Amino acid sequence: MTLWALEIEYNGTPFMGWQRQKHGLAIQQVIEEAASRIRGGAEVTEAVSAGRTDAGVHALAMVVQIELPDFTPYRIREAMNFHLKPHPIAVLRCGPAPEGWSARFSAKARSYRYVILNRPQPPTLEVKRVWHVKAQLDEQAMHRAAQLLLGHHDFSSFRASACQAKSPMRTLDFCAVRREGEKVIMETKARSFLHHQVRNMIGSLKMVGEGHWPEARITKILAARSRPAAGQTAPAEGLYFTGVEYDPPLELS
Amino acid sequence: MTLWALEIEYNGTPFMGWQRQKHGLAIQQVIEEAASRIRGGAEVTEAVSAGRTDAGVHALAMVVQIELPDFTPYRIREAMNFHLKPHPIAVLRCGPAPEGWSARFSAKARSYRYVILNRPQPPTLEVKRVWHVKAQLDEQAMHRAAQLLLGHHDFSSFRASACQAKSPMRTLDFCAVRREGEKVIMETKARSFLHHQVRNMIGSLKMVGEGHWPEARITKILAARSRPAAGQTAPAEGLYFTGVEYDPPLELS
Repeated sequence: MTLWALEIEYNGTPFMGWQRQKHGLAIQQVIEEAASRIRGGAEVTEAVSAGRTDAGVHALAMVVQIELPDFTPYRIREAMNFHLKPHPIAVLRCGPAPEGWSARFSAKARSYRYVILNRPQPPTLEVKRVWHVKAQLDEQAMHRAAQLLLGHHDFSSFRASACQAKSPMRTLDFCAVRREGEKVIMETKARSFLHHQVRNMIGSLKMVGEGHWPEARITKILAARSRPAAGQTAPAEGLYFTGVEYDPPLELS
Repeated sequence: MTLWALEIEYNGTPFMGWQRQKHGLAIQQVIEEAASRIRGGAEVTEAVSAGRTDAGVHALAMVVQIELPDFTPYRIREAMNFHLKPHPIAVLRCGPAPEGWSARFSAKARSYRYVILNRPQPPTLEVKRVWHVKAQLDEQAMHRAAQLLLGHHDFSSFRASACQAKSPMRTLDFCAVRREGEKVIMETKARSFLHHQVRNMIGSLKMVGEGHWPEARITKILAARSRPAAGQTAPAEGLYFTGVEYDPPLELS
């Protein structure tokens, strides 16, 4: 057996999230079951991911570690994708993991995208893949407000009550908001995020974009260190895990 | 009552197609039922569309005519979208129809897009919205071959056996194939298309893109005037109705 790094893409809609649950299907479970089938039904070690996404959250390039046979990357990818059917999870690339590497603990930076469909009409083709906001958003005001979140802060105001992290301190490295036609898109990056941090950030930035809050209120929300000071938790369906960085970078094919 | 022109968007996945069926839900039926609810449950006239899409085919800007009350366009759009819920159909814009106008018979040009996901890994986020083709396609060869389809031809080789059109003669005004990352996209335009014509055209262009057929074979297929001479009918799920042109143009808001 070899420890493999798998870069995977998934549609989070039908899943309870990354982590195995008693009730309902989790992405972790589907990955482990596909790996087990490659091994002829043998028990497999736990699949560990760079990020544990919530129910309904999507991923464009999640990285997962799991033990698999010593095949070529091509054969591992094809075999995994065969056994992952019909679930909307695909192995994009893969490779043997470097010595001592952990998908979770070796991650230097994680990136997320949040997609708002900003138009009066409801979504049709992108149902469950966007947050529908009817009122016209000022994405430039949202971008300026987002810059107030950058740096090392106590993010308690943007932290879910269920968050298990020991410290509310996080360093936000990047946060940009742009418009692409009917969509308003936030991209953000940090070494790690608190539970619901991205969804809570965009929930407050939306209040700025709608003109309900001045941009400077973001600084006051941070200073309050209190969840009720911030805006709503945006729905999971607009959130995409877009990537994770390691040093040295993973070599996948 | 006023005859309205509605520009609508829909995800074709859950529907039996545009046209009302005995078994299963059609887009036409959902539109008529929403219109009826706006009219307090009264019987409504038949909804007529610019194109009758097949089961699973999507639309970004289909135009539909139906009688509705003499409200403002804003109120018609909001009321229709309210009553269309939870179906993935949305009225984007609307306006009172010009005198003597028909959504179907006044159409001067119809446009379609066909989207191929061209990568070894299966689709996840775009399941039911693309045709998955694993082998690397030469989109430039496909584009050159597509130019051989332009003009006035007998399109019998690209016509479904169930096609009800009186003549197999059609004039193809535009057909372009391009790559956008992992996607190969065809855009095409004509006054009207035969049944399955777009899906049969891309089915043959894919054979060129995979290197199985030389580009010039497209000319031979046209000359054969025989459906078996052409490639497979590409799946409905990659097809999008993208627009219809009228002269004078519709004024919608």
